[in-house]
Amino acid sequence: MSFAEDGKAAIDWLVGYQERVEELPVLSRVQPGEIRAALPESAPEEPEPFSKVLEDIDRIIVPGLTHWQSPRFFAYFSTTGSGPGVLAELLTAGLNNVGILWRASPALQELEETTLDWLAQLLGLPSGLHGHIEEGASISTLAALAAARQARPGNRVVVLSEHAHSSVDKACRLLELEVRKVPTDAEFRLRPESLDLEGACAVVATVGTTSSTSVDPVGAIADVCADAGVWLHVDAAYAGSAMICPELRWAFDGVDRADSVVVNPHKWLLVPQGCSALWTRRPEAFRDTFSLVPEYLRTPDSVASLSEYGPELGRRFRALKLWTVLRCYGAEGLRARIREGIRLASLFESWVREDPDWEVVAPRHFSVVCFRRRGSDEENEAVLERVNERGEIFISHTRLDGQYVLRLAIGNEQTTEDDVRRAWDELRAVA
Amino acid sequence: MSFAEDGKAAIDWLVGYQERVEELPVLSRVQPGEIRAALPESAPEEPEPFSKVLEDIDRIIVPGLTHWQSPRFFAYFSTTGSGPGVLAELLTAGLNNVGILWRASPALQELEETTLDWLAQLLGLPSGLHGHIEEGASISTLAALAAARQARPGNRVVVLSEHAHSSVDKACRLLELEVRKVPTDAEFRLRPESLDLEGACAVVATVGTTSSTSVDPVGAIADVCADAGVWLHVDAAYAGSAMICPELRWAFDGVDRADSVVVNPHKWLLVPQGCSALWTRRPEAFRDTFSLVPEYLRTPDSVASLSEYGPELGRRFRALKLWTVLRCYGAEGLRARIREGIRLASLFESWVREDPDWEVVAPRHFSVVCFRRRGSDEENEAVLERVNERGEIFISHTRLDGQYVLRLAIGNEQTTEDDVRRAWDELRAVA
Repeated sequence: MSFAEDGKAAIDWLVGYQERVEELPVLSRVQPGEIRAALPESAPEEPEPFSKVLEDIDRIIVPGLTHWQSPRFFAYFSTTGSGPGVLAELLTAGLNNVGILWRASPALQELEETTLDWLAQLLGLPSGLHGHIEEGASISTLAALAAARQARPGNRVVVLSEHAHSSVDKACRLLELEVRKVPTDAEFRLRPESLDLEGACAVVATVGTTSSTSVDPVGAIADVCADAGVWLHVDAAYAGSAMICPELRWAFDGVDRADSVVVNPHKWLLVPQGCSALWTRRPEAFRDTFSLVPEYLRTPDSVASLSEYGPELGRRFRALKLWTVLRCYGAEGLRARIREGIRLASLFESWVREDPDWEVVAPRHFSVVCFRRRGSDEENEAVLERVNERGEIFISHTRLDGQYVLRLAIGNEQTTEDDVRRAWDELRAVA
Repeated sequence: MSFAEDGKAAIDWLVGYQERVEELPVLSRVQPGEIRAALPESAPEEPEPFSKVLEDIDRIIVPGLTHWQSPRFFAYFSTTGSGPGVLAELLTAGLNNVGILWRASPALQELEETTLDWLAQLLGLPSGLHGHIEEGASISTLAALAAARQARPGNRVVVLSEHAHSSVDKACRLLELEVRKVPTDAEFRLRPESLDLEGACAVVATVGTTSSTSVDPVGAIADVCADAGVWLHVDAAYAGSAMICPELRWAFDGVDRADSVVVNPHKWLLVPQGCSALWTRRPEAFRDTFSLVPEYLRTPDSVASLSEYGPELGRRFRALKLWTVLRCYGAEGLRARIREGIRLASLFESWVREDPDWEVVAPRHFSVVCFRRRGSDEENEAVLERVNERGEIFISHTRLDGQYVLRLAIGNEQTTEDDVRRAWDELRAVA
């Protein structure tokens, strides 16, 4: 077994995969249990060559994948594991550093801090924030709300809109905090005047909600939070990446006053999965919550470790992929891709608007269009299932004002105008 | 920028790194802030080639790494990101699947379930357990204790020995559970007769504690837990991997009766960082704790998603590296490496025992030796700092019975008898 040869075969396999991915059905067609049944019941006793694993990936795994790397993946939030990001993950695994404390990998820690400073600058966040990377927004939100709970003892309510992400509910369950949902306006934005902060330790405002990418008025919410001394956490997991474009920066108005903010570069900034950026202007509240250094981790180094700011002890060298993407695209390259995604979404939106059989049902701020065929929920649900079965595109849905709504999300680097046109053709063909 | 060319350069870079890693100082020699100061203050505006990133990794990053891939890394728990595991991570990043629910990647979910069944068989765990993979043991433990809290409402105490891992304390803080530490015996094992389960929702037993790799008597603890209806969580993050060798299976005696058990293949089973296996015989308690499916994630598929069993929503395709390692080494290949690690540790132990200036201070069950130079704590602390500064080896320490103790941990695949001999020579040279 030679790492060099097997490695080159793996690179070639990925090149081939990326070339043919757009010919594959985007949503996997397997039935539940099918992949499992195709696998042996036990691990082999004797070694097998890596080439055999690659063969089985083609034979067994690929048919069971939903192709997030397809240019016609339009579901949830569409993402891209870009070439430079993917290679950085290779290096991360090869170096296999484990950031349990500073001396265990000074470069891991300092590159994480530095790249989050770089990214904060690009997003127009204030200087001096403390940043670190969590695996995903669910853990980032958990960490932020734990710090908020710590900072406001005796206050056990988290206030959010009905359009906040389910991970906030999940974190509140774990932290045994009460969730208080407040109404939204006609454009699915939290109404600051309806904020009841009695007993609240935190308000969660969302910049780019999952259902409709609506933008809560963070500035007005920050005013209310500041008056009440309540922690303001901003969930910008999806839309935050777009703040690298100054013309979209309106959506971050007031975020400079947030106590914590989360942005996922693995969603819309070409970084492979496993990179959720979390900043705070109250790092001491995070350390109060998470710092715990047992004897076997004490060192003479006078540096706080990143494990003192979140629930994990060990961490992968996650910053390497963010650093590599920031460098290989450059800020201008990344802005160009955000703008192209928005241009394509806006084009799709215009086609929907022009067709009397269809309607746009939420303002389109970024790269997600919420739309439906005029007709019943059942008809729209049938459109979704049928169009996804055909395999040309994959879209997902939500519910807005009680109505079943289709979502088309653009975020893959390879998506072209032709791909978006095919989505529209497919939708009309099945309807 | 060509992915194929850059990819091959990255593979070649890793081949070169692995060849020269043993010539590099194992513990990084940089001072706090040095890496940060070597990096620009902002991200570049214009794209840079990937080759420039590789150059800067050599120039800036490598001096700031502590080389976990070095055969003379003997600190904490020594690990290996093996070739097949590293290449699987490359594929994981390249496929960039995000396992938020079954249809988002059926293969991701079913391979995760299947490989955990395979591994459960190899470890001698009972059949029928529900298994899934978390990023690390801190999150696994958090998930297990959250399920225990859910299963025993009104009971807020977690009972553990003073040698349990700090991640248990951290999880209890997040979950607002009270930690009750009970005494250990002369060999650092929890004493089942001292278990006070008043108000307890869980007991955490450790198979292979971090300080000394002591093994709590899980069978006797399971008896007490069963009588009291208290959740038993077994932390075998490090030593669990060794259970693939039947002759070591004594350490898992009684684990079949645990409610949950965690084993980290990324510690001692050649899998790169980010693979903590968590099994439970009470999956319904995990679902009660974590299941929460918002409208935008509802599908007609009648399959529970792995996100319903833990704090994350999205997950990387973590099973791919475990599957690849299990196949490319085979069970026999993995057993051979565990046995070689134990043989080398036992050899080192014998050298320490034979030298009247040194002593072994805890039973050596697996691949970690706890020892010290006869003399003061200060002398031993000085030995540690000096030997680590010299760069030939990297070891860490702990405290046992109030005494400062050195730890030598073996786990890197490349470690040879000669490396262990050099460690012993270095230690005697500086002492």
